[in-house]
Amino acid sequence: MMSLPVLREMDKVVCLPRLSRVAVCGGTHGNELSGVYLVREMLKANKKVTDKDEDNSLSVTTLISNPLATQQCRRYVSRDLNRCFTNASLYGPVSDESPYEVIRAQELNATLGPKGSPEAVDLVCDLHNTTSCMGLCVIAYSDSDWICLQIFRHLKRQMPDMQVRYLNYAISGQEAYSLDTVGKHGFGMEIGPQPHGVVRSNIYTTMKLGVQHMLEWVRLFNSGTVFEGGPVDVFTVVQNIDYPRDPETHDITAAVHPQLQDRDFCLLRPDDPLFQTFSGETLRYHGEESLYPFFINESAYYEKNIALLLARKHSVMVPAIGRSRSTEEGHKNMI
Amino acid sequence: MMSLPVLREMDKVVCLPRLSRVAVCGGTHGNELSGVYLVREMLKANKKVTDKDEDNSLSVTTLISNPLATQQCRRYVSRDLNRCFTNASLYGPVSDESPYEVIRAQELNATLGPKGSPEAVDLVCDLHNTTSCMGLCVIAYSDSDWICLQIFRHLKRQMPDMQVRYLNYAISGQEAYSLDTVGKHGFGMEIGPQPHGVVRSNIYTTMKLGVQHMLEWVRLFNSGTVFEGGPVDVFTVVQNIDYPRDPETHDITAAVHPQLQDRDFCLLRPDDPLFQTFSGETLRYHGEESLYPFFINESAYYEKNIALLLARKHSVMVPAIGRSRSTEEGHKNMI
Repeated sequence: MMSLPVLREMDKVVCLPRLSRVAVCGGTHGNELSGVYLVREMLKANKKVTDKDEDNSLSVTTLISNPLATQQCRRYVSRDLNRCFTNASLYGPVSDESPYEVIRAQELNATLGPKGSPEAVDLVCDLHNTTSCMGLCVIAYSDSDWICLQIFRHLKRQMPDMQVRYLNYAISGQEAYSLDTVGKHGFGMEIGPQPHGVVRSNIYTTMKLGVQHMLEWVRLFNSGTVFEGGPVDVFTVVQNIDYPRDPETHDITAAVHPQLQDRDFCLLRPDDPLFQTFSGETLRYHGEESLYPFFINESAYYEKNIALLLARKHSVMVPAIGRSRSTEEGHKNMI
Repeated sequence: MMSLPVLREMDKVVCLPRLSRVAVCGGTHGNELSGVYLVREMLKANKKVTDKDEDNSLSVTTLISNPLATQQCRRYVSRDLNRCFTNASLYGPVSDESPYEVIRAQELNATLGPKGSPEAVDLVCDLHNTTSCMGLCVIAYSDSDWICLQIFRHLKRQMPDMQVRYLNYAISGQEAYSLDTVGKHGFGMEIGPQPHGVVRSNIYTTMKLGVQHMLEWVRLFNSGTVFEGGPVDVFTVVQNIDYPRDPETHDITAAVHPQLQDRDFCLLRPDDPLFQTFSGETLRYHGEESLYPFFINESAYYEKNIALLLARKHSVMVPAIGRSRSTEEGHKNMI
């Protein structure tokens, strides 16, 4: 624990229910190997850890989300699994001919959800890697999920040597498409750069620490610790930019500019270099607003027509939070 | 041209036939994108460049070796194409049920070869990328192919800011398995680090320069330039090392150690860290000889049970070379 700032009396503590069931998922994309090997390592240690100490049972489920794609070391077999968790996809009809991932998403929804129901697990942490130079990102669909935001604050405090950022995809719950939306709370833990199909020790270790600190936070929260509030920088996705492409073949005709490559979360200003064509010409950013680029040159996004995404940064005031139904006990520890 | 050292009189010039037909191949592995986009760019510029100036025609053929894998952005569809050029595979029977790459290898052998015959193209330069931090490597099957070694010397001179190395896989011609063995001379131009399925501007530009300098060298050679001899460091492959694996599942149980990762061609000494297990333990190199590691943590080699390769470094004295059958003209330029 790094520091224990004193909770100020005027801080209003938002009380939230205990998080009894947490899921840690890897291999949602079968070639993002840090999560695959971390989940396998956790499964080896314990198929299901049930922590009964301090009268606060915490059940941690670990699973490989897409076993078939993981076995083949591919992102997916038929369809990107992490786009199959919209309500429309989860509750649509399936048959033997449905894509593997659509069927698997419904299975995962039965195991961890149902999405949006009281039976859903309390928290899903879905592990991802990116080829982009993004450090560790907590990716959620909200800038007002205090659980996710406080976990983010905890990771940032506990991993001071790491770039840790909070990304908000402002999409409504029903339309939100990723596995982590099946839980009552959920986020993607995205770490890079790491080529797909590769596990790098430094990235694996960062992810392992990230998961340990996340679970540590949940245990502290469940045991009654109150976490102080404070401001958080949130990057909210605004738009994405595709590669320049040949109008006939649809092949890309330029790569991300060397001055932009690996500069995720460094402000991109109007007229900054954006692409370098394969014949050597520089193409510039013609947007009117300075924005923060991320997922720059992510391998899996070529087929999605995304060369990079752009976000606006704003500050969100996160309230102090504690566990509901035992407030007096909750104040015994303050973080 | 960087320097024009005077050819010493005692240098014996080895005279070799002109290189009239050169092939530049990309997409032998369909997800190694620098070569794919460079070849497409060259094809766009000229389907086939025929250079008739100075009475020295040079025909440069550019092609995508594995169009189906390139289209799917995969290394291969059925089998690694760059292992299909042994004599046994090239001259074995095929049917409609043969793997796509076996058939494609025979097609390429008909276009660029036949391997080992007088009809084969004079030089094949096959473009590759690696996730390993290897800089630019000329990979050949010989430490006495003076054409390849002199091209390597030219690249090293012309690209002083780049790490350029010469790798020798000591395998006999018939058993040599890669596309570049179809030509009378041939080498792989391997550049990294670049994740597969990604094109990075810096790596693309390095490859483009490498190919330009290679073709420039061929034109100089054909026009009668004599290239001085000198010593070359050659890395000859000695052995490879697999990841530690679970004896039952065969899953890897460790990643390359963070102190070894990205340290390709830095001497690995007995007892140096080699792997870090997923539970955090350091495993050390137990070899008796200090050797040079390369292809450290190459994505495509997980399935080949190779975590890294090891090479011995030795110095080869490359003779001065010039074009045969016009020696007096050959001496008019000296490099």
